[in-house]
Amino acid sequence: MLEQRIRHTGLRSRIVSAEEAQQWVKDGMTIAVSGFTKSGDAKAVLQALAKRVEQTGDKLRINLYSGASLGETDTILCEQQIIARRLPYQSEPRLRKSINLGEVQYTDQHLSHTAELLRSGCLGDIDLAIIEATAITETGGIIPTSSVGNSPIFVERAKRVIVEINLNTPIEFEGLHDIYLPKDRPNRLPIPITKVSDRIGTPDIPCNPDKIIGIVLSRHTDTPSNIVPADRDTQRMAEYILDFFEHEVRHGRLPHNLAPLQSGVGSVSNAVLSGLCNAPFENLEIYTEVMQDAVFELFQSGKVAFASASSFTLSKSMTEHVNASLSKYREKIILRPQEISNHPEVVRRLGVIAINTALEVDIYGNVNSTHVSGTHMMNGIGGSGDFARNAALTIFVTKSIAKDGRISSIVPFVTHVDHSEHDVDIVVTEQGIADLRGLAPRERATVMIEKLAHPFYKDELLYYFNRALTYGGHTPHILEEALSWHKRFADTGDMRQFRGLADVVGRDRRISSHTGRSIKGISRPL
Amino acid sequence: MLEQRIRHTGLRSRIVSAEEAQQWVKDGMTIAVSGFTKSGDAKAVLQALAKRVEQTGDKLRINLYSGASLGETDTILCEQQIIARRLPYQSEPRLRKSINLGEVQYTDQHLSHTAELLRSGCLGDIDLAIIEATAITETGGIIPTSSVGNSPIFVERAKRVIVEINLNTPIEFEGLHDIYLPKDRPNRLPIPITKVSDRIGTPDIPCNPDKIIGIVLSRHTDTPSNIVPADRDTQRMAEYILDFFEHEVRHGRLPHNLAPLQSGVGSVSNAVLSGLCNAPFENLEIYTEVMQDAVFELFQSGKVAFASASSFTLSKSMTEHVNASLSKYREKIILRPQEISNHPEVVRRLGVIAINTALEVDIYGNVNSTHVSGTHMMNGIGGSGDFARNAALTIFVTKSIAKDGRISSIVPFVTHVDHSEHDVDIVVTEQGIADLRGLAPRERATVMIEKLAHPFYKDELLYYFNRALTYGGHTPHILEEALSWHKRFADTGDMRQFRGLADVVGRDRRISSHTGRSIKGISRPL
Repeated sequence: MLEQRIRHTGLRSRIVSAEEAQQWVKDGMTIAVSGFTKSGDAKAVLQALAKRVEQTGDKLRINLYSGASLGETDTILCEQQIIARRLPYQSEPRLRKSINLGEVQYTDQHLSHTAELLRSGCLGDIDLAIIEATAITETGGIIPTSSVGNSPIFVERAKRVIVEINLNTPIEFEGLHDIYLPKDRPNRLPIPITKVSDRIGTPDIPCNPDKIIGIVLSRHTDTPSNIVPADRDTQRMAEYILDFFEHEVRHGRLPHNLAPLQSGVGSVSNAVLSGLCNAPFENLEIYTEVMQDAVFELFQSGKVAFASASSFTLSKSMTEHVNASLSKYREKIILRPQEISNHPEVVRRLGVIAINTALEVDIYGNVNSTHVSGTHMMNGIGGSGDFARNAALTIFVTKSIAKDGRISSIVPFVTHVDHSEHDVDIVVTEQGIADLRGLAPRERATVMIEKLAHPFYKDELLYYFNRALTYGGHTPHILEEALSWHKRFADTGDMRQFRGLADVVGRDRRISSHTGRSIKGISRPL
Repeated sequence: MLEQRIRHTGLRSRIVSAEEAQQWVKDGMTIAVSGFTKSGDAKAVLQALAKRVEQTGDKLRINLYSGASLGETDTILCEQQIIARRLPYQSEPRLRKSINLGEVQYTDQHLSHTAELLRSGCLGDIDLAIIEATAITETGGIIPTSSVGNSPIFVERAKRVIVEINLNTPIEFEGLHDIYLPKDRPNRLPIPITKVSDRIGTPDIPCNPDKIIGIVLSRHTDTPSNIVPADRDTQRMAEYILDFFEHEVRHGRLPHNLAPLQSGVGSVSNAVLSGLCNAPFENLEIYTEVMQDAVFELFQSGKVAFASASSFTLSKSMTEHVNASLSKYREKIILRPQEISNHPEVVRRLGVIAINTALEVDIYGNVNSTHVSGTHMMNGIGGSGDFARNAALTIFVTKSIAKDGRISSIVPFVTHVDHSEHDVDIVVTEQGIADLRGLAPRERATVMIEKLAHPFYKDELLYYFNRALTYGGHTPHILEEALSWHKRFADTGDMRQFRGLADVVGRDRRISSHTGRSIKGISRPL
């Protein structure tokens, strides 16, 4: 058994317990760990560290770098105030709280950028990398588990490495991964991926065995994903997108097998992919950062030919199915480093269709993906920018309202911009779908309000836009009101100004001419 | 003479006057023209069209697509209200006015994106392309003049083509250009540029001669650039950047020949490049979208080994020098399609250093490049986003104040976001240089205010930031005040709230701890 898991004979003597290994972590260190969307994250050593700190009361603070979100390890470390700095992504409520209190310095990064920033030297040295693995090869190569993330660059650049061999992971993970790191400049070459299914690297992460200071055997399991099942609204949004795909195919703007699909984590993206099981598209391809349950439903329905990502994030039952079928899926799936799954070069070459979730969108198409009320971090930008900027077709989805209608997701002015108007093609709510491609801002506002706003807010958005037009400009706004909806929500618990607005401005519901010259009967701001 | 300029014998019979050619332009057409930063723009036919409209009073509106800004043609067309829709960039005051009045629908695009959007079909068909050329080859290939821009994709996709042979351009332009268009998907391959000097295409734009319906002989000249000479402030900003380069080289984060440089149009960028003439870096390379005078000063000082761009934008005297020396420069210069000069794939592979100008930057590092007061378009995002997102090092420059101090370029909250905090590494004003790499928002705010703000505004920014901290959040803000500086400027002509603020909050000048927990003596917002 151990012979299969640690094939480099010299390394077998380096097995230590998690409790022993955690002692290598010292105050002030930069620790880089495997893990992406709570998958394949190194769990044993850092959790043992937290336990030590809890028991001894030691003061110890580290910089913690990862691929993307970790599971409960982020929470456990945060409870012991061990994390001083965190990047590039997180999604745990406890850590989020510390970030928003300013207790943890969080650097929210495009997920394809972290490797480059490490190479540039501006994120400092990595003292220790802790990598969850299925096995170690004869030469010291590390075979990852359910995610690749940033592990290859971490292993390459770390001074020392601890490997957590997870005995609960099927050995059949081997051969699923494709590890490729761009060379340092000026010797960098094109990334030779021209098809989703191209394998360009090695099945393991090359590692000098001398760097591996310890091997921990673990049996932790990944935190299972718990996707909220599609409700009527998310179902409707998925239908809009599927109808739009059919429309684009009919007009010759998309081929019959669409284009490689990227979908962010979330119930709408999952519902879109599930909907494809019964849609008239065949031989679909997935080029994304994370595979949710729906990707495997598509495999089961025979609709998808190949899928590439950097990790799985699956429910408990789907994990069992996939783990039991890895030797079958291995021919149809690749897990890549996030630098490659999200690389602008590849995303643009393949012409990906990107579907990601917005927190709020303004009437001109600017998207806030991260900051509640412009100030409080939710999770992070993740890979949404890598895909949105470079995709052939960029779609953002959001329900038109939140908190029983007290919040509108379509607002005059977003409180934080993660994706600017230049990077947003299509926006979808349960009210409809807005095609912004090629439109100027005033045209976009018209479409956004008409198609996407909830009836609770449509009149108020029109009221804002029509009055903003009187101020003129390429992107008309009333600066003193632009953020007033969010302020009103903070003060009153409801973004709405007038409940009976339709009566007040009933005659102005028709959107004014775009010219800004034929606006009648609209008074200046109150 | 004409034999040299029109080598395809069958095409010589298609010579027409500009007055004849303009009649092919019909109401409602989409016209695509050569031209990038007022260089190599097709001038004859559209100016003849404007003259006809002026003389006849005909009503005629067109969609006008280009590479980037045109010279006076944009103004002349706009005066006759001929432009209904314009993309992807402009910089003429008259057109800007019409855009801000909503009379022209302007779609401001990343300059590398237009070709892709044309391929996707969402910008409609191109009825007519009008391309300025040095010559037409034996097979109908079009040899551009002082810019390439979007001409290759326009020629490929247009139903019909008019060529304006500019007899004033030196025939030695031939061999300077490198025309390469990515193939349509799914057959797209990597762009095989691994060095700035790689030639990957043809010297001419391939064109089916049957598509060329007319050839106009012209003698128009490009609008010369008039870069504002460096003043004390821009000089100082250039020095900060050069010192920073030396610092990075000393710390091993940049090689001795730096990295391929991109610099946007503007006097600071020009001053930085000029400053390199006397800096201790050799064998420099330029990978940019436009070459200003300073690039040729660098050639003259022997500092630069190779330069690649999509156009020249030169002063009158430098134009004369370059035109007279083209056969020498041809070995050291390439002009490429803007899709390639600005391509994320190549920019990231080469690890470009990008220097671009901001209108304003907020304390967290978000950049507004386009919208005055958040509403009024200045020029457009241009290529700044193509470079900023993908460069190895992204620098934005702006003077700390404008209008004699009545405007601060460092503000609590930018009124429009073109480049988010995720894409900005270094910000420079005449006050100093802020290195934001790897910092969390609260840390960035501290550095931005300390290093970059003008003394007129430093206290007010601290006053805002320190009070915002009491509201908490990853990116603390006071929403009802966030845009108040711009509103105050609109109302009073000055962003400053307190002229004697130092007295009021003197003891609070020290920046509060990042934790947001140790702020003393600061009252709630007024």
